[in-house]
Amino acid sequence: MPAPFTTLTEFQDCLVGLPDMDGEANAAANDRNSQLTKPPGALGRLEDLAIWYAGWRGQARPTLMAPQILIFAGNHGVTAQGVSAFPAEVTAQMVANFEHGGAAINQLAKTFGATMQVHALELDRPTQDFTQGPAMSEADVVDALRAGWEAVDPGADLVVTGEMGIGNTTSAAAIAAALYGGDAADWTGRGTGVDDAGLARKTAAVAAGLVRNAADMTSALEVLRCLGGREIAAMAGAIAAARFHRIPVILDGFICCAAAAVLAKSSNGALDHAVAGHQSAEGAHARLLEALDKQPILSMGLRLGEGSGAALAIGVMQAAVACLSGMATFAEAGVSDG
Amino acid sequence: MPAPFTTLTEFQDCLVGLPDMDGEANAAANDRNSQLTKPPGALGRLEDLAIWYAGWRGQARPTLMAPQILIFAGNHGVTAQGVSAFPAEVTAQMVANFEHGGAAINQLAKTFGATMQVHALELDRPTQDFTQGPAMSEADVVDALRAGWEAVDPGADLVVTGEMGIGNTTSAAAIAAALYGGDAADWTGRGTGVDDAGLARKTAAVAAGLVRNAADMTSALEVLRCLGGREIAAMAGAIAAARFHRIPVILDGFICCAAAAVLAKSSNGALDHAVAGHQSAEGAHARLLEALDKQPILSMGLRLGEGSGAALAIGVMQAAVACLSGMATFAEAGVSDG
Repeated sequence: MPAPFTTLTEFQDCLVGLPDMDGEANAAANDRNSQLTKPPGALGRLEDLAIWYAGWRGQARPTLMAPQILIFAGNHGVTAQGVSAFPAEVTAQMVANFEHGGAAINQLAKTFGATMQVHALELDRPTQDFTQGPAMSEADVVDALRAGWEAVDPGADLVVTGEMGIGNTTSAAAIAAALYGGDAADWTGRGTGVDDAGLARKTAAVAAGLVRNAADMTSALEVLRCLGGREIAAMAGAIAAARFHRIPVILDGFICCAAAAVLAKSSNGALDHAVAGHQSAEGAHARLLEALDKQPILSMGLRLGEGSGAALAIGVMQAAVACLSGMATFAEAGVSDG
Repeated sequence: MPAPFTTLTEFQDCLVGLPDMDGEANAAANDRNSQLTKPPGALGRLEDLAIWYAGWRGQARPTLMAPQILIFAGNHGVTAQGVSAFPAEVTAQMVANFEHGGAAINQLAKTFGATMQVHALELDRPTQDFTQGPAMSEADVVDALRAGWEAVDPGADLVVTGEMGIGNTTSAAAIAAALYGGDAADWTGRGTGVDDAGLARKTAAVAAGLVRNAADMTSALEVLRCLGGREIAAMAGAIAAARFHRIPVILDGFICCAAAAVLAKSSNGALDHAVAGHQSAEGAHARLLEALDKQPILSMGLRLGEGSGAALAIGVMQAAVACLSGMATFAEAGVSDG
């Protein structure tokens, strides 16, 4: 479906007009949940997740049959600053690995019955090094937002967005610092595993990017343009499109949440249709989740990206929905309810 | 397969002789994991779980295709002390609900492709009220251990044990207190949701059981006999049988872990083939997991029993194994490894 915007201003307007949860379906699911054959609240957070999901899907007894995992890949000019433990060629190599089914996210997609598509976004045209100026032009960032928006299958019933892009924890750290303040060091971590010298270069790059682009960053979307990458913008576009189609989203780790934060800062409640799939081992992710007011479903020490932490949480969402929609009520089962 | 014991002494001997992990398969899996297309350690605890699983299955690239969920149900004489928010009839009613597919555990089994069997253990013959004397005779407890042992499918590749038994958090609290010390109140919680008066009665029952049976409780297996229930003994038997067949186990909540603790106290390392699926909202479960030195995979506020928390973790184990066995290596994928 063609994205309904061709400029950042139109995207901003579009965000403000996105739909809300279906309150009736949410209330009906809540009522159904209270009658199921279990002590009240005994399924803990599974109950909250299922009722929330029901509200977004507009069904008191929803199904979760068609999860979609979208992987976006982009290259980053800021890798010139020596910010990653891996060379930039790895982005394209990993895209090939996704296409051949060899990456972690392929195995997770198979495990939970999700479809998965990989979108390589102009890998031979990295973003500009943001320590020298804006990473993207408006046309670049809008193209990437549109690519993300249009990648969402309107028939999906759950969306996970993942990414691959050597250098992109540096970009995410810069975005988070620009949106929420604090020092570059507060938001900068080891990513795929840089050593102390690499971490120092990375922190310096983030700090330099914040100073260099300060005058241009007049809105959250301008922050995305100045410090982001194509895969980060595409994730933001996909998360917004999911909301447009009333499809719940599971957020992944630090980079995905940086993309999501751009939406949250652009429009109040823009992430009401999203839950945090996991807390990453990338240190600043916990801080970012707190800023987004999202409690992670899982905390397993993952720090891979690719959507892997969110994909792992698909199983939890499937279980939650299966309980809400499949369990018998006390009356149906002839069980005494205390 | 007939259980290889007919007395508690024989069961104790059997526990001591159970097999250990296959160190070679474990080392081979560890080596394979280090070559997969991801930064070292980036899959966090999924890596540890998969390598551990590989060791127990004796395969460097294991599969996880046949998880088995076993639900045991029993009735408890201690319900005469007013320890539960639900009447004892609910045990049998919930067994019928399991058999008709209406309970939470049925939905979870379906979600993760597990087989599930329910074993109702002499529901019309509750255990004795342990505040008045031993809950079971040796014949009773051995029968239940054997029922659990024999319920394990030797062809399964993962076992989850769950339970249903009105009054059984009281029994589990008494077992935990007898094995690990502390006051009755340290181990007694609200179970399915008793009010303050019910909690006081429950705590008093646990304290009374500890005093009344003190002289008889000369071993962990005698603790099981004096304070346990048939479903708790059956879970212990099943967990031991899984070890016999080199099948990894995911432990469920407080009651399952009380059963497991009997094994841990009977033989060092008896739970090396088991991981903790979740941390229950039943307060004393965290304390019991600490005593067992097990880190829960999930913490979602569940407090239902039925094996539900462990079943939820099946998806995580499937994901972990799929990544270890299905991912490409750096060499296979032609990806530069940093």
